[in-house]
Amino acid sequence: MKNINLTMLTDFYELTMANGYFMSDMKDQRACFDMYFRNVPDNGGYAIMAGLEQLIEYLQDLHFSDEDIDYLRAQGMFGEDFLNYLKNFKFSCDVYSVEEGTPVFPSEPIISVEGPMIEAQFVETMILLLINHQSLIATKANRISMAAQGRPVMEFGTRRAHGASAAIYGARASYIGGCAGTACTLAGREYSLKAMGTMGHSWVLSFKDEYTALKTYADIYPNSCVLLVDTYNVLKSGVPNAIRVFKENPHITSKGIRIDSGDVTYLTKNARAMLDAAGLNDCKIIVSNALDEYIIRDLILQGAKVDAFGVGERLITAKSDPVFGGVYKMAALEEGGKWVPKIKLSENITKITNPGRKELYRMIDKSTGKALADVITNFDESISSFGSYRIFDPEFVWKRKVLKNFKAVKLRKQIFDKGNLVYESPSIDSIKQYCKTEVDKLWEEIKRFENPQEYYVDLSKDLWRTKDKLIRKYSREN
Amino acid sequence: MKNINLTMLTDFYELTMANGYFMSDMKDQRACFDMYFRNVPDNGGYAIMAGLEQLIEYLQDLHFSDEDIDYLRAQGMFGEDFLNYLKNFKFSCDVYSVEEGTPVFPSEPIISVEGPMIEAQFVETMILLLINHQSLIATKANRISMAAQGRPVMEFGTRRAHGASAAIYGARASYIGGCAGTACTLAGREYSLKAMGTMGHSWVLSFKDEYTALKTYADIYPNSCVLLVDTYNVLKSGVPNAIRVFKENPHITSKGIRIDSGDVTYLTKNARAMLDAAGLNDCKIIVSNALDEYIIRDLILQGAKVDAFGVGERLITAKSDPVFGGVYKMAALEEGGKWVPKIKLSENITKITNPGRKELYRMIDKSTGKALADVITNFDESISSFGSYRIFDPEFVWKRKVLKNFKAVKLRKQIFDKGNLVYESPSIDSIKQYCKTEVDKLWEEIKRFENPQEYYVDLSKDLWRTKDKLIRKYSREN
Repeated sequence: MKNINLTMLTDFYELTMANGYFMSDMKDQRACFDMYFRNVPDNGGYAIMAGLEQLIEYLQDLHFSDEDIDYLRAQGMFGEDFLNYLKNFKFSCDVYSVEEGTPVFPSEPIISVEGPMIEAQFVETMILLLINHQSLIATKANRISMAAQGRPVMEFGTRRAHGASAAIYGARASYIGGCAGTACTLAGREYSLKAMGTMGHSWVLSFKDEYTALKTYADIYPNSCVLLVDTYNVLKSGVPNAIRVFKENPHITSKGIRIDSGDVTYLTKNARAMLDAAGLNDCKIIVSNALDEYIIRDLILQGAKVDAFGVGERLITAKSDPVFGGVYKMAALEEGGKWVPKIKLSENITKITNPGRKELYRMIDKSTGKALADVITNFDESISSFGSYRIFDPEFVWKRKVLKNFKAVKLRKQIFDKGNLVYESPSIDSIKQYCKTEVDKLWEEIKRFENPQEYYVDLSKDLWRTKDKLIRKYSREN
Repeated sequence: MKNINLTMLTDFYELTMANGYFMSDMKDQRACFDMYFRNVPDNGGYAIMAGLEQLIEYLQDLHFSDEDIDYLRAQGMFGEDFLNYLKNFKFSCDVYSVEEGTPVFPSEPIISVEGPMIEAQFVETMILLLINHQSLIATKANRISMAAQGRPVMEFGTRRAHGASAAIYGARASYIGGCAGTACTLAGREYSLKAMGTMGHSWVLSFKDEYTALKTYADIYPNSCVLLVDTYNVLKSGVPNAIRVFKENPHITSKGIRIDSGDVTYLTKNARAMLDAAGLNDCKIIVSNALDEYIIRDLILQGAKVDAFGVGERLITAKSDPVFGGVYKMAALEEGGKWVPKIKLSENITKITNPGRKELYRMIDKSTGKALADVITNFDESISSFGSYRIFDPEFVWKRKVLKNFKAVKLRKQIFDKGNLVYESPSIDSIKQYCKTEVDKLWEEIKRFENPQEYYVDLSKDLWRTKDKLIRKYSREN
């Protein structure tokens, strides 16, 4: 709650390692790190990248205050020379990143950071925290919005968010992923999102009866009049009272009812019939109450009459899979002026890193406009959009395919050049629109909620050879 | 990331209702609201209350800035008189709360707020956000610490937290619930928790070989020397290199190895044998890697040789059940100088609220020191610790029991008196100790991870009658 600079929001080991590099005369050693993730939450077919704008703010604001230095000194583990170095710490790395709103896939280098070892290592914790969080929520919001089939979805989760930042940046990420607005007033103001909300059950309880409560509200807000109808009994009391209020007040321009409990399919079908019979075809029905993409899909399948959804706890916590498992791994070290690829091995094949400085391309079919595959290449490789290009599965190399008539789009932009910001974050509405456009480029098979077709993410031949050579070298040595 | 006052971190409907009450001449109407929850996460037997200190800071800092007022005016829904009222808004309610670290149970009034309707309603969003979040994490940390059977558990989740507040206050709540420390440097500094951490895989990759990496670290940190041994191969390379480093450097006072991947039972048993054979019985084994209470219980059952656990994503997100479903409901309205109980009905019995101003007692057996039951009473009732007291199940009233030789302890303290703080938050170490003491008072049957015995939370006879009367009244009317 207090206003604190977030430089010290870091895993303590970033500091012990930094001091270690400093004491080992390695502070000017240059390194390259990649942020990537291994699995799409909810076993989905793709994730939505979000959080870059906040990462930029963090990197621009990196500095250690005297208070920070004093705290570190008191730990008795850090040398004075190192603490002096921290006093003048300024982020001076190059940063490359996929833009917010982009659909991304496992193992892709979403962000890369190159520069002095200490700096490139130090930013690990916050890169992961910020990108993991917002990508998690943007991805979930995208699934939920897709389930709603064009009906607006509003983010209603503030009260169940994991703290203030989770509420504010969760609302932002939800909007990027596809939500139409939020109940969170602060996020609405900070990010120019539509902030929405009408009344709670306590409003209805505060008046002598339900009719009076609804009527009072309608008199005050005739242009935004969504009446909560489930305080006592939806069909026997709430809907009849709402109908009476709507019929009596000719000034109401925007009519709706909200149902927050009970069997939504049954209640909305009956409420719709009652409203229509009263001539209130223009009255919208909004439902909320522990919804997510699965429940929304089922409600629509069962013929529930819903015009808009309010989604709370299951969106703001990504309840069914609340961890976005982004990691940050060293990919290369500069030695004698040359970048040398590094690899982290593991018994688990998918945990073996892709070595070296890399670039990321998306291959777009020129005739359909659809995304065919992504290719991870060495940093200096380029893919010509002329002629054909052979992709192959990096694990099962006999699975191959030749792409023709494609456009190779570089997915990452340079964000910082030696610590200087060289990128301007788009408006949130541009990001949201870009997300929609890019998701539309994916085949339907990739977008299934369950058992989606796996999108091709392949390595270029050169990158694959570099990796294969390193794996063989280590397995010979051990 | 920016420094913003959190007054506007509120569901928009709190503001539309506030304006509505203001315009209906009800701003001085007094109301009483309760915060309570309906289910313990993970189907556990109890939850741990946390987040009160942050709630106090929030309530003390409540105010609308000119920028806030301008934003609200621009929404075109609020009257100028109301906006003027907000300019001078100051929280003036009474607040009662269970103290942090207390084991709490479903339906108990954990926090009650009494005062002018607009104020008591307005604070709903943040009461829920703060208490839901920290109680969720404290409860999870308590389960995980219990599974570890006395071995220290360290909170390692910052990078997977849902934003900055989730990391910082999650670390705080973890400590209250039982964790020994955190990797989160900022939380360590802000709450005087032990901040811990040593090295990542990138450290090992940065040196010419694993031995050099571990040796360099040990030379720098002989008093806190936990070596990561799974970068290449734990048993063939990591542990032998660690042993060599420990044997060569006589200055190392605190030795440990950390394993972050692979089969922990197999690896720790073998690593322990290798360390012991080398005479390094004092070397601790620390494991991390997607742990939670279930995995830790199984590791220990299988005889894994672990001295301490680092628990990350599954703690900081409460992955297996990431929603603490606290709600905030109106319980009474003042009418003609008298408090009138209010009830929210529902087809779902457990969603029916307990009406009226209430108090909460815990009945402690004088001979065993164990908690026998909690009793929710009317606010002005008192329970004498002399004689006997009959409790009964509020749903199945024939289930009854007579308590004797008990002490009735009032569980809630007054926190604010007409907006003035009358409570001092204990130190975090007192809260942690209090939590341990209070959990120790619960029978083992309540503490099972799965299918725990349900702890008695009963209503006093007077409160039960009030509720029963209101339910009958409404069911007659509808």
